[in-house]
Amino acid sequence: MDYSKKAIVLHKKNRGKIEIKSKIKLENKNDLSLAYTPGVAAVSSAIGKDKKLSWQLTNRANQVAIVTDGTAILGLGDLGPEAAMPVMEGKSVIFKEFAGVDAIPLCINTTETEEIIKFCKQIEPSFGGINLEDISAPRCFEILARLENELEIPVFHDDQDGTAIVVLAALINACKVMGRAMKELKIVINGAGAAGLAIARLLLAVGVSDLVILDSQGIICQGRANMNPVKCEFALKTNQRKMQGGLVEAIKGADVFIGVSQANLVKPEMVKSMAPKPIIFAMANPTPEIEPRLALKAGAAIVGTGRSDFPNQINNSLVFPGLFRGLLDHKVRRVTTAIKIKAALALAGVIKPTKNQLLPLTTDKRAVKVIAKAVK
Amino acid sequence: MDYSKKAIVLHKKNRGKIEIKSKIKLENKNDLSLAYTPGVAAVSSAIGKDKKLSWQLTNRANQVAIVTDGTAILGLGDLGPEAAMPVMEGKSVIFKEFAGVDAIPLCINTTETEEIIKFCKQIEPSFGGINLEDISAPRCFEILARLENELEIPVFHDDQDGTAIVVLAALINACKVMGRAMKELKIVINGAGAAGLAIARLLLAVGVSDLVILDSQGIICQGRANMNPVKCEFALKTNQRKMQGGLVEAIKGADVFIGVSQANLVKPEMVKSMAPKPIIFAMANPTPEIEPRLALKAGAAIVGTGRSDFPNQINNSLVFPGLFRGLLDHKVRRVTTAIKIKAALALAGVIKPTKNQLLPLTTDKRAVKVIAKAVK
Repeated sequence: MDYSKKAIVLHKKNRGKIEIKSKIKLENKNDLSLAYTPGVAAVSSAIGKDKKLSWQLTNRANQVAIVTDGTAILGLGDLGPEAAMPVMEGKSVIFKEFAGVDAIPLCINTTETEEIIKFCKQIEPSFGGINLEDISAPRCFEILARLENELEIPVFHDDQDGTAIVVLAALINACKVMGRAMKELKIVINGAGAAGLAIARLLLAVGVSDLVILDSQGIICQGRANMNPVKCEFALKTNQRKMQGGLVEAIKGADVFIGVSQANLVKPEMVKSMAPKPIIFAMANPTPEIEPRLALKAGAAIVGTGRSDFPNQINNSLVFPGLFRGLLDHKVRRVTTAIKIKAALALAGVIKPTKNQLLPLTTDKRAVKVIAKAVK
Repeated sequence: MDYSKKAIVLHKKNRGKIEIKSKIKLENKNDLSLAYTPGVAAVSSAIGKDKKLSWQLTNRANQVAIVTDGTAILGLGDLGPEAAMPVMEGKSVIFKEFAGVDAIPLCINTTETEEIIKFCKQIEPSFGGINLEDISAPRCFEILARLENELEIPVFHDDQDGTAIVVLAALINACKVMGRAMKELKIVINGAGAAGLAIARLLLAVGVSDLVILDSQGIICQGRANMNPVKCEFALKTNQRKMQGGLVEAIKGADVFIGVSQANLVKPEMVKSMAPKPIIFAMANPTPEIEPRLALKAGAAIVGTGRSDFPNQINNSLVFPGLFRGLLDHKVRRVTTAIKIKAALALAGVIKPTKNQLLPLTTDKRAVKVIAKAVK
């Protein structure tokens, strides 16, 4: 099926995917007198005296900003803020449909770390939370860390922690299906951007010990050239067997391949070189690192991708709606590691997994409920 | 009727007034594959290659940002961005209900001129236009002028030009009702903020010659102390009779009083001191400069206010929905003086005016149609 053509037609016909809706009726002068002047003056005055009332008297408590600079759109790269909008509108639609959250896309034309931080601080009074999106590494690490400290509202970079949570949930269930213990697995993560390093951080937090990460230049190891400070940090914590080289070397004998990199990087021979019955999460978007059909043929026991048109979709959209529902409902200010692990366990627990269905479908609204509850 | 209490109840019950709505259905995996991954990648790629496609493939062409710093909320003053939100949500609801425009309130916590300009430039890729709102003078003049030059999308400061257009329309019709020629009128404008000076500018543009403006310190005249550069500019263009003093002096013998200042500043004796059958537009919000009942009793022929619960509402909400509808539909980049005058004439022409109904009701959708057409 040609999704590309159909998607273009759908977006053109509807001129995008979101609109504003009024929650009140506005049929006569009396309605206007309450929603606007003179009545609204009392509402503004009340908030002017006690700013906390903005959580009760405006939509703020249900409102999230999706902020992006368009530098890392899906697996497509830096296409700019205008090109990011279709993805952000898509997230907004998912936010509303699955979790009732009102998410407003703000695609901005600055890529400066300090400017993006300032922008998020400027919009804080209008929102209950901020979902950072498709901001490239390593800037996204500093932006998230700084905003977590400098804002009163929760901030979540979906490409980092949304991906990490859904991957952990999928891996928990893959272990159940295969009868394996996660701590004993040899795991390779291909991609050391926002998603790759956040996945690595969360896997280390749950006790994974044999973990090798690769960027586009090969295995991340101590002493290697061309590594930003965040990669250097991970060089210390991972790759305990001191491997060097590229994906061919790293993947040999591994139990799990987690790809957050680029289309078609994994060849069938590489899958064949892995430990018996390997688990492959090939999550490059829109085209995975290896086609599921090819991976299975080469011996993979379980294959997941980020796409909704293959079995085993491992996609953030299973996480971010419920996560923000929980953050907003329970007024949680910070997404801690404990919350991330709880959310992954909750998501994994929604279904009894099989090789062909590790996780609930992205349209399964139970995911939202259990994750929102886990946040509490 | 106690609008204040009822308005608080309405806002609390609904938690504000706006929400996000999806324009597409999202019921199954196929829907998700088109609205989100993998289909959305084709849409983002297309815009990445040709940024102009964002006008066709996202909601941008129908989407306006309402940007405020909350420094001049209604007539209440500087209550901060949180307190501005109820007014902005009110505008958003009006935008959607009357003109089908999706307007997104962004109440930001900076009051620095350069920061606000930068903010608006940063959000440009996401919007078809920017409605500046409740930003105090004189900063608002520079912000608007700079953005008109530095943005590719139209910018409109509703407190300036929205007010000016609706006042001009009301005055055109008041002249019809009273059989007067506008150019012969002696006009007093009380208030030299965003609205007052924009009204003055537009009245000068249509040929009014006897115009006196006052700020909180009295009549604006050449050589007076404590005037910002914009007021100095108006001191040269207005007050040809070289009047000095306060409102008592200015209003004596005037044909028209236009108030964009504060509650209850005009006393019945002042109305009595005006020329016979004067026209009073007392537009301070939420409480006018003089109660209509008192002004009529003191001899006023026509009284208008900004409120929807009195006759003759003279309120921006008659203008901004149609104006942005026109700007968006006809891809107009700049709101010129000619457009403002055309819009005022169009609005004035919607009804045959009477003393008690100078303008169409704010709920009259004909206003939107004629103004949108006038923009073209």
